[in-house]
Amino acid sequence: MKITIRQNILNEHLNNVIKGISGKNIIPILNCIKLSLSDKGLYLMSTDNEIAIKSFIPAKDIEEIKELGDIVVSGRLFHEIVRKLSGQLINIEELIDSKLSIYTTTSSFTLNCNDSNEFPDLELENSEEPIKIDKKVFKNIINQTIFATSTQESRPVLTGVNFKFYDNKLECTATDSYRLAKKEITLENNLMNKYNIIIPTKNLNELIRMFKEEDEQIELHIFNNKIIFKFDSIEMLSRLINGEYPDTSKLIPQNFSLIIDVNLKDFFNAIDRASLLTSENDKNTIRFETKNDQVIISSNIPEIGYVEETLNIKKNNNEELKIAFSSKYMLDALRAMESEEISLMFNGDVKPIILKNPKNDNLLQLILPIRTY
Amino acid sequence: MKITIRQNILNEHLNNVIKGISGKNIIPILNCIKLSLSDKGLYLMSTDNEIAIKSFIPAKDIEEIKELGDIVVSGRLFHEIVRKLSGQLINIEELIDSKLSIYTTTSSFTLNCNDSNEFPDLELENSEEPIKIDKKVFKNIINQTIFATSTQESRPVLTGVNFKFYDNKLECTATDSYRLAKKEITLENNLMNKYNIIIPTKNLNELIRMFKEEDEQIELHIFNNKIIFKFDSIEMLSRLINGEYPDTSKLIPQNFSLIIDVNLKDFFNAIDRASLLTSENDKNTIRFETKNDQVIISSNIPEIGYVEETLNIKKNNNEELKIAFSSKYMLDALRAMESEEISLMFNGDVKPIILKNPKNDNLLQLILPIRTY
Repeated sequence: MKITIRQNILNEHLNNVIKGISGKNIIPILNCIKLSLSDKGLYLMSTDNEIAIKSFIPAKDIEEIKELGDIVVSGRLFHEIVRKLSGQLINIEELIDSKLSIYTTTSSFTLNCNDSNEFPDLELENSEEPIKIDKKVFKNIINQTIFATSTQESRPVLTGVNFKFYDNKLECTATDSYRLAKKEITLENNLMNKYNIIIPTKNLNELIRMFKEEDEQIELHIFNNKIIFKFDSIEMLSRLINGEYPDTSKLIPQNFSLIIDVNLKDFFNAIDRASLLTSENDKNTIRFETKNDQVIISSNIPEIGYVEETLNIKKNNNEELKIAFSSKYMLDALRAMESEEISLMFNGDVKPIILKNPKNDNLLQLILPIRTY
Repeated sequence: MKITIRQNILNEHLNNVIKGISGKNIIPILNCIKLSLSDKGLYLMSTDNEIAIKSFIPAKDIEEIKELGDIVVSGRLFHEIVRKLSGQLINIEELIDSKLSIYTTTSSFTLNCNDSNEFPDLELENSEEPIKIDKKVFKNIINQTIFATSTQESRPVLTGVNFKFYDNKLECTATDSYRLAKKEITLENNLMNKYNIIIPTKNLNELIRMFKEEDEQIELHIFNNKIIFKFDSIEMLSRLINGEYPDTSKLIPQNFSLIIDVNLKDFFNAIDRASLLTSENDKNTIRFETKNDQVIISSNIPEIGYVEETLNIKKNNNEELKIAFSSKYMLDALRAMESEEISLMFNGDVKPIILKNPKNDNLLQLILPIRTY
């Protein structure tokens, strides 16, 4: 392999594939990047066995292709070298004895390489039914649900986001069994097949960190045990979480004894301030108590102090309610809401609290109350 | 004490005094802020016994002063409450039973207070000979020397910056015994007294983080075991480090066998890239070898690879030099330099390396070489 390429182009693509390296993998080859040079252009690849990332630089963006071939080199070091050669024209050349030369007019690096045959084979094929979604829409779905996933490895299926595709619908659900976030969107086309998969939280976070121009689309290729995302010049593979995602539909009530509309920003700020006098040991419990057209939000840590916040509300009937919940879960859910006004929906003080945009049904947040009264 | 004050004004001053609280001090009162309301205005005070900070809000900036008095309250909590009452008019009122009320039209906090008599007495008096320095100049002195201080508690005097004042001179020195940074400036006035003090690194960092409008002056009030800095509406006390600072003047050679001029940015970038193939276990050693009008900078980690950087230089004679030094120390020193060209000054491969601006003598960086050849 022998190539001459502009630093800014190589660096931009390395910024992507470096995210596929977890850093201190005990298998040395998984800390490496594979460079594969063909007539079409240069492929950069990385994998840590959980995800794999492939970024493609077409031949037209390469200064000079002198000799085709594959090279496998320490990912972070190669990335740092290229990053610090800012503004220069970089030559990369395979030497004898598994060595790689990276040089410019004034700098010359010689690195030991790994055997390119040892690098895992990344099959980033197309599925028979690729699903296309606007990147901006897809990023939004993830941001509005992902915070509700569990960090407890005891129930692996809850450490990912559940994606259900059927007809022209996508339904995303995340829950840690104390709260739940659910978003539905309509797809452009009707699907032939149904898909019900769980994508690991960590991999979705890596994915959306690679998004740049958000006006483009992302293609989803779903297989038995993996999903491949294709966008811009990037292909990313994520393994899927095995197991059956719990059926959460029966958790979500359809009728409510009381619906309260509040201004999102005012409600968020009141909860945020009240949360200053909650403690994690006490599940960040705050109390919510209606009085006619107002709600009193209160909390206390006995040895430190107490707080009361008063907020104007609109109720759909005269029922009064005393309920308690985690301020942390409520703030997380409110951060995912977008409307100016939101509806808080209740069935007494022990049933789930539902949050929705009153004008739009596609996003739902659910929080279990805490029994204190 | 009873007062009404705008949130933005109180918050700005709390942002300063909060820096005087180290966070998890085992003495509860040292995690507190003291509010002292007099006819003149409101004083906010904090201390962790290493530093003390006092910020003053004049009466004209206070909405209403209803009742004078002192209050001592948990610093971080009070700061967070005020921060999250953004945009509001805040009432602060002492209640009976050592309680404090903080309220607006919709929020009401009640906090337990500490006994204000237990709060350490902060004597922030004036010295007989205050020294005035431009804040910008003072900040620059600190930034150009402080990185060279030691983090080893085994020699406490080296964990601070040495300030020597005499006549109309200020001489600042920092060293960890492997490298040294020294800056001299001329003061506006001649001093009656001489001062030779050591100010802890940590406290100087806190101090310059509080600087805002840099066109103003800072006043230094030096006492036996403390220094008080006065600027804007802030007074900050720092304890001094006891002990005698080593006499470093004899370390610094006056004559050199070879002087090399290089472009600062090119030299920095070459060292920065070469440092990628150095390791901390090996003291980040890089080699520097002249060949006529060029220098070859090289380093290697045997199992990983090696690098050579070539740079054009100007020498004052035909001597050729092979020397090795820590790339980390060299990069730190170069970051403190400001000129486009710098002079590297040598006396063979075992004597200290000196860095200076060729046109200006007031900043000096010294690095000890590493013997490898």
